[in-house]
Amino acid sequence: MSQTPTTLTAERILEATEEVLRRHGPAKATVVDVARALGVSHGSVYRHFRTKAALREAVTKRWLDRTTGVLAAIVAAPDLDPETRVREWLAALFAAKRRKAFDDPELFATYSVLTTETVETVVGEHIAELTGQLTEIVRAGADSGAFTAENPATTALALFRATDRFHDPHYAGEWEQPGVEAEFEAVLDLLMRGLRARG
Amino acid sequence: MSQTPTTLTAERILEATEEVLRRHGPAKATVVDVARALGVSHGSVYRHFRTKAALREAVTKRWLDRTTGVLAAIVAAPDLDPETRVREWLAALFAAKRRKAFDDPELFATYSVLTTETVETVVGEHIAELTGQLTEIVRAGADSGAFTAENPATTALALFRATDRFHDPHYAGEWEQPGVEAEFEAVLDLLMRGLRARG
Repeated sequence: MSQTPTTLTAERILEATEEVLRRHGPAKATVVDVARALGVSHGSVYRHFRTKAALREAVTKRWLDRTTGVLAAIVAAPDLDPETRVREWLAALFAAKRRKAFDDPELFATYSVLTTETVETVVGEHIAELTGQLTEIVRAGADSGAFTAENPATTALALFRATDRFHDPHYAGEWEQPGVEAEFEAVLDLLMRGLRARG
Repeated sequence: MSQTPTTLTAERILEATEEVLRRHGPAKATVVDVARALGVSHGSVYRHFRTKAALREAVTKRWLDRTTGVLAAIVAAPDLDPETRVREWLAALFAAKRRKAFDDPELFATYSVLTTETVETVVGEHIAELTGQLTEIVRAGADSGAFTAENPATTALALFRATDRFHDPHYAGEWEQPGVEAEFEAVLDLLMRGLRARG
């Protein structure tokens, strides 16, 4: 039935889904739309994704995971001191979100809808993964004596919340305003002083 | 023409406008709707507010000013040390927004629409007024040696941005989640350590 039955991988379906979303917005990207874009039967797609919800969840997760991958490299960077690592991690998160918002605005808008409406679990896991990375950095800083953080996970979540303006898609409209970089730096400076503080 | 021409004050018109907004949402609250609710001619209302935009701006400003008034009392409180004053000010801001969101959800939703769509200047002035209050507190703390803040206005804006999650109406849905109080405290603790830090 399908034209390319042997090469239809989940990854190829997700690439096609992203293209459908980019062109037609979040109302599209049903299993049938994606099958049509790939020139395969919808049965072939259903073998990988049984529902529209499963397909949307998977494509959203893939999109969010791209950011997580970039940031993981900073967590693992061996030659950075803890404060530089926190700063670079938060700056890389802001930069990644900004790039998504401005380089590919249709897809960003589409994912903003998907993440608020349909896939709360995926977003929850993404945030847990991000704050988990940040917890690792904070814990390493506390262990080395560079940071004061009784509970690294609590402190990491506080850092994440305190910088919402610089990564939550809700604020994308502010990210090109003059002064946003200076505001980000001022927030970071205050937070870093808090992290370094004794007692 | 109007039933009570001598007592029709701007304040009475704004009270009626708020009631119209509460009952019928932001699509209503034209000058004509409000005149009808007051049982007066629209000409009487036009003498105070020449356009629908002017009326909406005034009613939004009045709503926002109620919060500013509560917070001003904390800025002026003579017997609080600087750190307690910052904490109480931020906690009072969060409490005021939460109260608005939960005690009067229709009106809160309506104002959330008005503030994002129609009255950017009013919101800008409101935020400038709030960060101005916070700047006063930070400056007093820096002057007394309790805080490190080279530029109190920059630090105050950083405090305001770092606590967006706890006063921006966008996050109202999170304000009844379990753990939100603990997150707020963790963010405050980190920020206060940053404020107190030397160098």
